[in-house]
Amino acid sequence: MRMVDLIVKKRNGKELADEEIRFIIDGYTKGDIPDYQMSAFTMAVFFKGMNKRETLALTMAMAESGDMLDLSDIPGIKCDKHSTGGVGDKTSLSVIPLAASFGLITAKMSGRGLGHTGGTIDKLESFPGFKVEISGDDFIRQVKKLGIALVGQSADLAPADKKLYALRDVTGTVENLSLIASSIMSKKLAAGADLILLDVKTGSGAFMKTLEDSKALAREMVDIGNGAGRKTIATITDMDQPLGNAIGNALEVKEAIDALKGCAPKDYTELVYAFAEEFLLATEMAKDKESAHRMVEEKISSGAALDKMAEFIEAQGGNKEDVYHPENLPKAAHTAEILATADGYVSKIQCEEIGLCAMLLGGGRAKKEDVIDPAVGFILHKKKGDAVKAGESLATMHYNGDAFPEEVQKRFLEAYTISVEKPQLNPLIYEVIS
Amino acid sequence: MRMVDLIVKKRNGKELADEEIRFIIDGYTKGDIPDYQMSAFTMAVFFKGMNKRETLALTMAMAESGDMLDLSDIPGIKCDKHSTGGVGDKTSLSVIPLAASFGLITAKMSGRGLGHTGGTIDKLESFPGFKVEISGDDFIRQVKKLGIALVGQSADLAPADKKLYALRDVTGTVENLSLIASSIMSKKLAAGADLILLDVKTGSGAFMKTLEDSKALAREMVDIGNGAGRKTIATITDMDQPLGNAIGNALEVKEAIDALKGCAPKDYTELVYAFAEEFLLATEMAKDKESAHRMVEEKISSGAALDKMAEFIEAQGGNKEDVYHPENLPKAAHTAEILATADGYVSKIQCEEIGLCAMLLGGGRAKKEDVIDPAVGFILHKKKGDAVKAGESLATMHYNGDAFPEEVQKRFLEAYTISVEKPQLNPLIYEVIS
Repeated sequence: MRMVDLIVKKRNGKELADEEIRFIIDGYTKGDIPDYQMSAFTMAVFFKGMNKRETLALTMAMAESGDMLDLSDIPGIKCDKHSTGGVGDKTSLSVIPLAASFGLITAKMSGRGLGHTGGTIDKLESFPGFKVEISGDDFIRQVKKLGIALVGQSADLAPADKKLYALRDVTGTVENLSLIASSIMSKKLAAGADLILLDVKTGSGAFMKTLEDSKALAREMVDIGNGAGRKTIATITDMDQPLGNAIGNALEVKEAIDALKGCAPKDYTELVYAFAEEFLLATEMAKDKESAHRMVEEKISSGAALDKMAEFIEAQGGNKEDVYHPENLPKAAHTAEILATADGYVSKIQCEEIGLCAMLLGGGRAKKEDVIDPAVGFILHKKKGDAVKAGESLATMHYNGDAFPEEVQKRFLEAYTISVEKPQLNPLIYEVIS
Repeated sequence: MRMVDLIVKKRNGKELADEEIRFIIDGYTKGDIPDYQMSAFTMAVFFKGMNKRETLALTMAMAESGDMLDLSDIPGIKCDKHSTGGVGDKTSLSVIPLAASFGLITAKMSGRGLGHTGGTIDKLESFPGFKVEISGDDFIRQVKKLGIALVGQSADLAPADKKLYALRDVTGTVENLSLIASSIMSKKLAAGADLILLDVKTGSGAFMKTLEDSKALAREMVDIGNGAGRKTIATITDMDQPLGNAIGNALEVKEAIDALKGCAPKDYTELVYAFAEEFLLATEMAKDKESAHRMVEEKISSGAALDKMAEFIEAQGGNKEDVYHPENLPKAAHTAEILATADGYVSKIQCEEIGLCAMLLGGGRAKKEDVIDPAVGFILHKKKGDAVKAGESLATMHYNGDAFPEEVQKRFLEAYTISVEKPQLNPLIYEVIS
């Protein structure tokens, strides 16, 4: 088999056999196939696509390019939840302890944030002392004991994807459904969960800007997951404005804790319930949506979910008291109100821009090497559809440093559109695909 | 400017500005732009194409990536003739001395052959002692004195093309009109001729297998040449069967000499006349086709063209007597007749296959490093449309070595199709494009 022939085959719109795809991924991982052939190949895939079978073969080959975690030793149903990323998206922080409070197992690998989206690990590291570098043995021990552990992604999980993603990023071949879906799913499959819940965000703050693209991606990933023998569900949820009110690591952790206390913003609470309910339905622990809802309510009102979070934080080096007293988490030195300049309704929030504003305050990374300030960010007071008067606060900005971040304030304000007409609101959950 | 943005721009079907194309070629030549970005870019060009302006800009950038020969110091009109390559195509060998006998100047850079097509330099090296490594000063001196010099292509002529072609070859991005045309024309422009005659071969032995593709390539190259201020003409000529009867280096040299003596096969003679006439018409040395024809006839019958060839061979280290006595050129130790196995008409000759047979005898290169045997090859006795009887010789095979090349004989025979019906013949010259 010669790589150039496989490039030409795909370029000419032909289907590749499973063993041909395996040859490409194995060769690329080992370094036998050079970057310049791989990038020509991915550009051919960009134009000619891959069918379902090819996409599954690609995903399996990438998943198997490194370690495949074997969690079969751990009793119980192993769950994973993955979000395609958004602004203010802290749902994993609430959903994982909730799931664990039902006896479900989450042995999760998670990533750090880049650009306008934050990462779950960055958020958890707002707890002083929290550690994501755990040895394999400690990880398994913790999962068995608590039902939860969360570690940073190991280098040897789907190394083919890591190498390929870096290449696609600089060769204009990111935007292809099969390549995106296989990139996400190869890591999920390698991480070993039985049940995978994918939250595909859609809108101005999401990777997928249109509902159509988001649905297609969700469908593709669900088909891969199910094709690989893992029960896979995807939700399509709104990211046309930030989720909840808190943006910024420690601020989001507080909101995630609020959800487990039953006092988080309405949209965020709705999503946390929805995901926990999906887990209960998929595992047949609840017979219908209504009873699932009541079960979640009970775990929140009884404090069981919050206690589970406290145990989890303590197990990974944090102080469990911080969960009960989140006011002790890192706080910014200064706050400032961002004031509306006109009367009307919030008709649009450029969501990605709000995420970038939080990054500019120091709450996110422009480059991989950047160090994050956990304390900074925003608490939104007005969201889409809210009435507002000139001079009223749209949001509170939390910042550090001596200089007032004037540029950030200006960009934040410009990201809000205030109109005379009350806008139509998007649904929070568009669809559940399984 | 970032390369990844230019890749995406082309991928999305947008036109690139001249300075963007220049940035790509300069960066690639210098090594600032890596192979993996360039191959993704060429694959995007494969799918989205380049318009005439972009193709010209690409060609100019590649031509100017190394030395641009300045022949302005040499009096007279500097001509170049280029063939896209075929089997038995020795026309340059006859046309260049003819042109020089009219006072036209050919200061030509030429290449070696690879695969089923031979190179002009390989053919000339059948003359014992003939050298293609000439210093710049000697080259100019010889051109001024004789009107002809022919050297191997210098490494610093269009280095961007050399690098890019090698990359395209292994990344499935050879077959794009703009990339093919710019590759050929960048070298022609850098070589400094005022008048460029391109012979675009079409058919089973040619790079372009269909008339439509050949016409499109010819049009593209003529537009580039004229756009760059060089008078450019292209002929589309048949390569559905070998040209003339001789295939193999020394055998082809003999046939080229025969043309200058007025006794070459009809098809080959017709093409030599046609090209020489095009030169005379394009330079306005002849007022019409008829008088051009008479002028060529005169240079052949007077022996002036043959004498010019002898001077040329002598100037570059060969023995001029070999031109007058080509029977002294290297001869193979053995010959064998390849006999027809049925009665009928030759209805088809798989031309590329015949070229490969000559290569397998040692007359061409499978790899760049292979050493050529000048003596081996074929003399065809039957061509398309000829009547043939079982047992009659289709061709004489000239070979060296102790073992009879049975496999080659078999493949040669299979490349001929003999049918009951007399086939329709292709025109030799399809079109002249200017």
